[in-house]
Amino acid sequence: MSDLYETHAGLLNRALDALRTREFWTPFPEVPSGRIYGENAKADGQAAHDARLGAAFDLPGHPEQRRTGAEVSPWGHDLGIDYPAADPKTLVAASLAAAPDWAAAGPEARIGVCLEILVRLNAMSFEIGHATQHTTGQAFPMAFQAGGPHAQDRGLEAVAMAWSEMSRTPAEVVWEKPQGKAAPILLEKHWRIVPRGVALVIACNTFPTWNSYPGLFASLATGNTVIVKPHPGAILPLALTVRVAREVLAEQGLPQDAVLLAPDAPGEEITKPLVTQEAVEIIDYTGSSAFGAWVRGHAGGAQVYTEETGVNSIVIAATDDFAGMCANIAFSLALYSGQMCTAPQNLFVPKDGIETDQGHKSFDAMAEGIAHAVDALLDDPARASAVCGALASPATLERIKAARGLGRVVRDSAPLGGERSATPLILAVEQGDPSYDEERFGPISFIVAAQDVEAGIAEAARLARTCGAITAALYDTDEARIGRAVEAFAAAGTNLSINLTGNIFVNQSAAFSDYHVTGANPAGNASLTDAAFVANRFRVAMWRRPKAA
Amino acid sequence: MSDLYETHAGLLNRALDALRTREFWTPFPEVPSGRIYGENAKADGQAAHDARLGAAFDLPGHPEQRRTGAEVSPWGHDLGIDYPAADPKTLVAASLAAAPDWAAAGPEARIGVCLEILVRLNAMSFEIGHATQHTTGQAFPMAFQAGGPHAQDRGLEAVAMAWSEMSRTPAEVVWEKPQGKAAPILLEKHWRIVPRGVALVIACNTFPTWNSYPGLFASLATGNTVIVKPHPGAILPLALTVRVAREVLAEQGLPQDAVLLAPDAPGEEITKPLVTQEAVEIIDYTGSSAFGAWVRGHAGGAQVYTEETGVNSIVIAATDDFAGMCANIAFSLALYSGQMCTAPQNLFVPKDGIETDQGHKSFDAMAEGIAHAVDALLDDPARASAVCGALASPATLERIKAARGLGRVVRDSAPLGGERSATPLILAVEQGDPSYDEERFGPISFIVAAQDVEAGIAEAARLARTCGAITAALYDTDEARIGRAVEAFAAAGTNLSINLTGNIFVNQSAAFSDYHVTGANPAGNASLTDAAFVANRFRVAMWRRPKAA
Repeated sequence: MSDLYETHAGLLNRALDALRTREFWTPFPEVPSGRIYGENAKADGQAAHDARLGAAFDLPGHPEQRRTGAEVSPWGHDLGIDYPAADPKTLVAASLAAAPDWAAAGPEARIGVCLEILVRLNAMSFEIGHATQHTTGQAFPMAFQAGGPHAQDRGLEAVAMAWSEMSRTPAEVVWEKPQGKAAPILLEKHWRIVPRGVALVIACNTFPTWNSYPGLFASLATGNTVIVKPHPGAILPLALTVRVAREVLAEQGLPQDAVLLAPDAPGEEITKPLVTQEAVEIIDYTGSSAFGAWVRGHAGGAQVYTEETGVNSIVIAATDDFAGMCANIAFSLALYSGQMCTAPQNLFVPKDGIETDQGHKSFDAMAEGIAHAVDALLDDPARASAVCGALASPATLERIKAARGLGRVVRDSAPLGGERSATPLILAVEQGDPSYDEERFGPISFIVAAQDVEAGIAEAARLARTCGAITAALYDTDEARIGRAVEAFAAAGTNLSINLTGNIFVNQSAAFSDYHVTGANPAGNASLTDAAFVANRFRVAMWRRPKAA
Repeated sequence: MSDLYETHAGLLNRALDALRTREFWTPFPEVPSGRIYGENAKADGQAAHDARLGAAFDLPGHPEQRRTGAEVSPWGHDLGIDYPAADPKTLVAASLAAAPDWAAAGPEARIGVCLEILVRLNAMSFEIGHATQHTTGQAFPMAFQAGGPHAQDRGLEAVAMAWSEMSRTPAEVVWEKPQGKAAPILLEKHWRIVPRGVALVIACNTFPTWNSYPGLFASLATGNTVIVKPHPGAILPLALTVRVAREVLAEQGLPQDAVLLAPDAPGEEITKPLVTQEAVEIIDYTGSSAFGAWVRGHAGGAQVYTEETGVNSIVIAATDDFAGMCANIAFSLALYSGQMCTAPQNLFVPKDGIETDQGHKSFDAMAEGIAHAVDALLDDPARASAVCGALASPATLERIKAARGLGRVVRDSAPLGGERSATPLILAVEQGDPSYDEERFGPISFIVAAQDVEAGIAEAARLARTCGAITAALYDTDEARIGRAVEAFAAAGTNLSINLTGNIFVNQSAAFSDYHVTGANPAGNASLTDAAFVANRFRVAMWRRPKAA
């Protein structure tokens, strides 16, 4: 059973090296190219996706009391797929039945299984890209990257960290305690990894795989059985994932039900009764803070790892590349129409303007510079659609509509093609305006006229501490002030990107190097993937007895 | 400031090695010998202790609104010591004021400070031994070991594990992402450890230092400021500890208030208002499950690490050393009058008896064998006192009195000298009797007539899962059955000791090798000291910016 561990030992060790150095590394190429993924990968992926549409999704051997599924692509068509569904008690019972054999398989076999699942998922990244596109609204290139290789990276990262922590304790040792002139005490001691129980992964609509793979693979690798609860609007990418996981388990003679799918339909959600199942000992949750608070409050003794709501800020203090800065910010605002947990919402600009390589820029000129950069980015309709994608939820359109009255409109939002879409809405407000003091999910941003740079930093840090924030960015040329901003954002538990221009964006978080979310402010209590994310998913039990000298 | 890190780097590295191999190791000798601790150490320790009695305990610079303290030695005299006391808000404000400088000191400086504190505590182990004896009731040899070097070992273990996890992330790296034929993206990334906030350590009466040093040093090393809340009956050992910590901090130019003492008196406890202080982000608690449930329920967003109530069992299936087994169990029952969280309470013996090197032993003969071994152990009054010590709490005497009616008295409890003391009470009951289904803290044990060996194992494992258990022991000669017991106790989250005879006991848990508590049953959610115990006491924050190629 541990053949897969041997097969993938090189991959595991390379991932462990990357986690240690935090240099750039990935085994899963992010470019959707036939030269990398195979000549027919693109066509095969498209065909595989098309074949799923309007059909029953098959999960051999999976508990099934009924069929469910009502996914609608944000690009305009019903997926028409139904999935095997069962009530929470049935799912938990199946998960518990699979638990003893999965626990007994041991760390090496489990790590091998997890790595094999990830490698197979990588090979089907085109199909997963289409599934992600038509559930999240991401344009295909982003859906391929974020739903495929980047999510696989995050899964692999969690597996490697889990191995790192599980292998910290040796399987056995002879313990020899001196007794002065008498013979030493000799004990043989043996340790084993004890999983916690059933793990529940509650996924979101916008990044169904990227945000759920860390919890899924961390729990699975450490010996827990996993129930994957997709958002009702984004089941397909996780159904494909669960299908692959179950295939690998079955091939290895291990219980397929170690990984289960818990699909539901809008208005018939089963998340709450899943959370309150007694046997659920670990919960990974991605979603709003409002529902997150409910999960945390009703989880009983379960460990809860969350990524929740946040309000991300950029502070603009000075720049020696005005055009590059505006273009970079414009892309961050437009990418996937601001539906990223890492997207900036509030841009703090001193009310008296800033110094740039193009001379002094007033607050209004600064705001216009960003608005124009967004216009330029979205000038070409095809590129606009590829950047903005579609809106995962109709509620976001309503939110944009309601937001127009919250400030002076610097740039208005508009639809793109036939899909449900919206370009960035940019509003100007004064510091202290309550409008920017909460997350407004989607392509809505505020350019805030701050008293001065320090006030902007303080306000952005305050928002991070009180509302949560996953990212922060700063543009500045004053090293002393940069140093103070570094302190302020670290104290607020927010990762900070400074002076980004070109092809790297504040929204981006790279596995093996960037920890995603610090866990130190209300945007989430967990960090992807640090040791704390894995170390408490298992326990260690010992037996010891005297050893003959 | 990091001179102390350099000074103690060898000690740290040796501790890290020990944690990796889990072989026997300690830098702090457990023998209270002048040859080890210095010719005058014994006399000096006694004199230092005597000078504390009836006097005001001085903590220079410590917040003080009044004085408190009402400790009474279980050996018969008032300590007559008062300590500087302040209300929870004042303590938290002082702790918060110390936080920025302590966080800014950085991991190396903090590790150096922690190691220096431990080394100084070790040098005063005789004084700490006396302080432990006259607050816990432990006889001096045990008080020296458990309150001194063994507690220091557990503190060092936590410091080493904290360093291991903090040093997992490099301080900086250059991240180079290839861009095909274009120039790579070059980012410099910097990481820093961000502490959580104020840490509260709630200590117990019986092992004031041993059970609190792990949380104290884990929180301190990871950058949190710490408020130490002693049990009102056992302040002195922790007051000495806090005093040393503050001395080292002051010498290093660091804020003394990074470590504070929160003493109180019986009937005027301040634990609850400390737990509910908003700024408290980490709580380490040792004590009853009843109060533990209150702490867990009122901790808000704070991380809570607990060691709580448990019911430990021994299953006696067979032995090839009847005399050795009885002597070993007798010592475990008598040591510190059963007031150890690791002491066995329930002894499961098949109702039809067992096979031994002395032939078949009936259930009654087995019970008598253990009772006689206790009698033999306690035959000499001086040795009896040295083994049993005194009772920390008068409630334990009441508990013994009430317990006499719970079964057939196999061996009655009796006082020893003038101190508050009690030898083991041993009762015989049938399997299924509800009397043994809860913790009866103190020298009270049940010999339970089990249906057979497998039923005894199942019942002991059930108790571990439902009531919690920190230790389990088994005497058996059947390897297949031993294997099944190993599985059963691991699944119940209990460490198992098999066939212990001679000078090693189920009660004993050695730092650097034995994890204390698994965290996998109700006896506690934390394990001393695994990575999960330290990894979530800090967070990691990054800043990144483009690096010139």
